[in-house]
Amino acid sequence: MLEKVNLNKKIDKEVYKKEIVHLQEELSVLQQKVKEARLPVIILFEGWGAAGKGSLISKLIQNFDPRGFKVYSNAAPEEFEKRRPLLWRYWQEIPEYGKISVLDRSWYQDVSISRIEENLSREEVLQRINSIKVMERQLTDDGYLVLKFFLHISQKEQKARFDKLDEEKDTEWRVTEIDRRRNREYDKYFQAFDEMIGYTDTPNAPWHILPCHDKYAARLDLFHIVRNAIRDALIKKEKERPPVPPEIIMPKTFNLVTMPQLSDVSLEKTIEKEKYRKQLDRLQQELSDLHNRIYRKKVPVIIGYEGWDAAGKGGNIKRVAAALDPRGYEVVPIASPTKEELAHQYLWRFWKNIPKTGHITIFDRTWYGRVMVERIEGFCSEDDWHRAYREINEFEQELYDWGAVVIKFWLHIDKEEQLARFNDRQNTPEKQWKITDEDWRNREKWPQYEECVNDMLRYTSTDFAPWHIIESQDKRYGRIKALKIIIDEIKKRL
Amino acid sequence: MLEKVNLNKKIDKEVYKKEIVHLQEELSVLQQKVKEARLPVIILFEGWGAAGKGSLISKLIQNFDPRGFKVYSNAAPEEFEKRRPLLWRYWQEIPEYGKISVLDRSWYQDVSISRIEENLSREEVLQRINSIKVMERQLTDDGYLVLKFFLHISQKEQKARFDKLDEEKDTEWRVTEIDRRRNREYDKYFQAFDEMIGYTDTPNAPWHILPCHDKYAARLDLFHIVRNAIRDALIKKEKERPPVPPEIIMPKTFNLVTMPQLSDVSLEKTIEKEKYRKQLDRLQQELSDLHNRIYRKKVPVIIGYEGWDAAGKGGNIKRVAAALDPRGYEVVPIASPTKEELAHQYLWRFWKNIPKTGHITIFDRTWYGRVMVERIEGFCSEDDWHRAYREINEFEQELYDWGAVVIKFWLHIDKEEQLARFNDRQNTPEKQWKITDEDWRNREKWPQYEECVNDMLRYTSTDFAPWHIIESQDKRYGRIKALKIIIDEIKKRL
Repeated sequence: MLEKVNLNKKIDKEVYKKEIVHLQEELSVLQQKVKEARLPVIILFEGWGAAGKGSLISKLIQNFDPRGFKVYSNAAPEEFEKRRPLLWRYWQEIPEYGKISVLDRSWYQDVSISRIEENLSREEVLQRINSIKVMERQLTDDGYLVLKFFLHISQKEQKARFDKLDEEKDTEWRVTEIDRRRNREYDKYFQAFDEMIGYTDTPNAPWHILPCHDKYAARLDLFHIVRNAIRDALIKKEKERPPVPPEIIMPKTFNLVTMPQLSDVSLEKTIEKEKYRKQLDRLQQELSDLHNRIYRKKVPVIIGYEGWDAAGKGGNIKRVAAALDPRGYEVVPIASPTKEELAHQYLWRFWKNIPKTGHITIFDRTWYGRVMVERIEGFCSEDDWHRAYREINEFEQELYDWGAVVIKFWLHIDKEEQLARFNDRQNTPEKQWKITDEDWRNREKWPQYEECVNDMLRYTSTDFAPWHIIESQDKRYGRIKALKIIIDEIKKRL
Repeated sequence: MLEKVNLNKKIDKEVYKKEIVHLQEELSVLQQKVKEARLPVIILFEGWGAAGKGSLISKLIQNFDPRGFKVYSNAAPEEFEKRRPLLWRYWQEIPEYGKISVLDRSWYQDVSISRIEENLSREEVLQRINSIKVMERQLTDDGYLVLKFFLHISQKEQKARFDKLDEEKDTEWRVTEIDRRRNREYDKYFQAFDEMIGYTDTPNAPWHILPCHDKYAARLDLFHIVRNAIRDALIKKEKERPPVPPEIIMPKTFNLVTMPQLSDVSLEKTIEKEKYRKQLDRLQQELSDLHNRIYRKKVPVIIGYEGWDAAGKGGNIKRVAAALDPRGYEVVPIASPTKEELAHQYLWRFWKNIPKTGHITIFDRTWYGRVMVERIEGFCSEDDWHRAYREINEFEQELYDWGAVVIKFWLHIDKEEQLARFNDRQNTPEKQWKITDEDWRNREKWPQYEECVNDMLRYTSTDFAPWHIIESQDKRYGRIKALKIIIDEIKKRL
């Protein structure tokens, strides 16, 4: 795509001056509409060194109220970022609905510059490109506007600009040996950029290549494109979104493990107290040793707990946590989302809590709220939760590909047992805080939840992150089973 | 203090078993009360390597519901943390009201281990200790319970434990050459720890030294102290807090700059349009060059804007921002606090937004909300805002000592001018979003605000962070003046 660009595009200064004033006003007004319509906008900039990224960004944001946008500079990742999945740090930069994120370099550096300078294999590059496309699709499906700009200049022009910077004492520090080398090896980078653009120029998030030899031309192009894109997105937002095609509900790209229906699960399994004690001791010791090993081998572990109210999630998690070194794990309780969380794509708050390599995160309730409580209570549209099965599988695949062990539990009891436990909580003063009116209300929706759980087990039990049903009618049995599965899954990975 | 500790304290296993059960139950119940009473608790652990920190923390948190606490491991700081004030990363770990933060190492490593291994000067150590004491006082004044534990073992015992770890293949990786060296130089560290404890053993946040040769004794001691401290804090919380002594309102430890009363400020200054254009261009160019220089010299700059509604903060900030490289600055708009922010000491949300070295942060409204809107609307108690003058001065001194340029503007107009601008906003469709009912309500409280502003100017105009009154009746004049001050202050620092 790059070679088709006419780098000699030039705009007369007077023409520029006349046009730019209108565009500036329009952009300023559009930002207010972006806010009102709660449209989230991502504008990312990639391109050649010295192509003028800084000053273009500067010009662009001068049209915006600072309360409505944020600029992120993405340099090389720091240690704590390297210990997370590649896209983790970019997820932190996703704007709230109604706000604009301007990205000075983005996830694309990891498939272009990194490709050459870190000598990535072709396979690795393609996998990263796929992850990027998935993320961009998830965002645009959620209503985000993603604008991607590549700032293009020729090898000769780049060299001339470096030379000029070098001449002046005040700017010479800006040109490094790395810049010079990149200029000498322009062709190699050209090819990498060109392929990157070709592979990721999708209808939902197309690339815009800006010829940057003439700064007026570049600015006008940029302003026009941003203006048009925001205007169109606002119009589109008013219309209804097209329905989700049915193949998304049962995605073909994942290998699914067949799961039983909840009603077919026998809940009669028990374990006697003495045997439980012994096994618990032994398994906790084993898990404790494994925690040491995953820490040293830097394997991240993600454990998600879902289950009926009063199924014993808390007690089960406690038995697992007791075996772990507190410096190497975290329990993340998932309550109803905060205002800030509600103002982002729903996976955002889970991305934030991904463990470092070598650490364990236990989620007490998970991202599956999207296809359970949000589906039942109508907190998201039918399209939204239909799409979620695929999005969740993609999310977990991302974690798995990164090297994580992903374990998911459904803690199962029957309706009578839940009633008995609710009553017990109600009647025991120390336990009363554990039971709320909402628990009783949810109980009334048991059949709806059962349908949701069955769908969830059916569509999201992938071979890389299958569901495990934990029979918890006998809590002790449930704890032993969960511990065993965690140990097995970790061992498999080691 | 350390030498007075009886390291041979021993508890019989049977006695331990009997006592611990009750303590565990009590702690578990107390955590619920902590939540209900919204008591924030910080439990920090320092001590010798191999003293048993990990397992003690593990035992302690097993009593708590994972939803109510979080463990933070504080290893050596990463790059992005090194580019912030020393206490910055610890401020991120402050718990919400009603929650518990457990700190595995803390700010105390920066005045003990660092003191020896980074060869800090005595002056530097004392300054850090002072910063720590200020932070702890600010937190306990806000109602936080701060529990500090030092885990103590002898040189001989430490060596024996290292040897034992070294013997087993599974644990030998835990003992490093650094550990061995620290053990050999035990006396030097002993003295550093001892002095640290001596200097920071304050009534509001006293140290507890745990003799750790016998693990049962250590655990029982720990559990007892935590139990008693939480119990007492809950009782104290129910009682009223004592009034703040008057000397806090006008702190003697700061050199204050005399400021005029608002009513004495002449608002007749103007600048003519042509002159404005020229000066603006020249000053923006100068600031742009300075931005380069502070970036290279890694000087952080913090600019706070306060002022009457419609005084022109937005436009003023825009003229400053236009001169800056977007990759090196951020505008932080301060709206009413979120739920999460309300659940922390009030300075927490500002600490989070401190710039990196070499970067500029512009706060659009600031921490002075505490002594203005919060005072007027009764969002905090009289004690709270009285105390705030000192706390704010301390906060700014912390930033100044770290090396930051701290600039504070009060944008001033008179009441008639505000009315004219309000009416203009009301009557211009594109500007209507800028005016709300709240603005009108605030306008009615002009005299109360004027009193607050006068107090603020009087008590918080320190020699390291004085206030600058920006006459903004003529907006252009105000912009030029602000730019000049920013340039002057940065130049002074360079």
